[in-house]
Amino acid sequence: MHKTKIKIAADALDANTTIAQANRADFDRADVRVVNMMSAPGAGKTALLERVLDDLDDVRVGVLEGDVQGSLDADRLAHLHLPIAQINTDPGFGGECHLDANMVRSALPALPLAEIDLLIVENVGNLVCPALFDLGEDRKVVVISVTEGDDKPLKYPHMFAAADLVVVNKTDLLPHLDFDMERCERDARRLNPDLTWISVSVRTGDNLGAWFDWLGTL
Amino acid sequence: MHKTKIKIAADALDANTTIAQANRADFDRADVRVVNMMSAPGAGKTALLERVLDDLDDVRVGVLEGDVQGSLDADRLAHLHLPIAQINTDPGFGGECHLDANMVRSALPALPLAEIDLLIVENVGNLVCPALFDLGEDRKVVVISVTEGDDKPLKYPHMFAAADLVVVNKTDLLPHLDFDMERCERDARRLNPDLTWISVSVRTGDNLGAWFDWLGTL
Repeated sequence: MHKTKIKIAADALDANTTIAQANRADFDRADVRVVNMMSAPGAGKTALLERVLDDLDDVRVGVLEGDVQGSLDADRLAHLHLPIAQINTDPGFGGECHLDANMVRSALPALPLAEIDLLIVENVGNLVCPALFDLGEDRKVVVISVTEGDDKPLKYPHMFAAADLVVVNKTDLLPHLDFDMERCERDARRLNPDLTWISVSVRTGDNLGAWFDWLGTL
Repeated sequence: MHKTKIKIAADALDANTTIAQANRADFDRADVRVVNMMSAPGAGKTALLERVLDDLDDVRVGVLEGDVQGSLDADRLAHLHLPIAQINTDPGFGGECHLDANMVRSALPALPLAEIDLLIVENVGNLVCPALFDLGEDRKVVVISVTEGDDKPLKYPHMFAAADLVVVNKTDLLPHLDFDMERCERDARRLNPDLTWISVSVRTGDNLGAWFDWLGTL
């Protein structure tokens, strides 16, 4: 029983990788860089986008929003007048907890790839499964909030092992919390020595330039 | 392809329900009440347990900890000298993002059911999939933190539809946030009119009595 389950899972991931490669080929052909943003619910992915997308003057940005239901995040970004496509995962298995390459592929016709330079994919809020599914992206970003606690790399290791960049958000709340930034970064780097690490506060704007600069180097 | 996937998912949930019923029968026979605690990563499930379990003098409590890897939460509770069993979901599909009835069943021999009155199951931190898997529990509790934002019921509706109790934690941080408690509760009650709603601060101890009282009525 357990063996069968693992076989199904392996097949599903193989199929995902094949479709991700097709996505990647399409993105490369259109000269579009792609960033897959992942986090727990409420860490601030959409807020991080709101604060920088308006300022990326020389970069034409598109957004792919992934949610179980609804389009709250796409609605929040609508005033930026960017190409935005929404994927709802609810038609699957009671709400899939992650995006997969096929969902992204099905949304591509809704995005004018020829007219954008950077595609941001905002994944479903979840620190487990999104790490396992290649979408065809160039970079994976994990956003964590200091309110979630400094033990997240140890508890959700696959996510930190897969990431290129960690953005630690809500640093304005640090005076009210027991969050050990050094411990958090050290535990994450043990899993993944090549991580880039940025801490910011979307609320106060502190260090958002570093996030902006990272996006600009892609 | 999509149809096959849904069929596999439905079969998996059917199998889960069968095992959950066996768990429930074992719990009833041993006269053990069971609470399934769910939340996003870092909402404060373990802290909520730490603060009340020591005071439940007349109730013999056991804990089942669910994590992708490690035993950080079980280690945090070790000083309470309660029966604690750890389930790690990592041997599955790159880290299962939820507990299922079979994982709970496999852990039961590690718990002295005859010597406890209340079993708390701390699920994997995730607001999507844990809502779908009956473990054989009597009650489902969802913990959210005010730092996650007041839009969580709309974005993770299955979790709020399935819950008996919502505990809103970290209310001490409300002065530093834009969190509309009325909106959050109203959206959750639209999904589930029978919800019990408690807001607390584990940090300051504010209103923890309500959580304590709710546990005492099971």
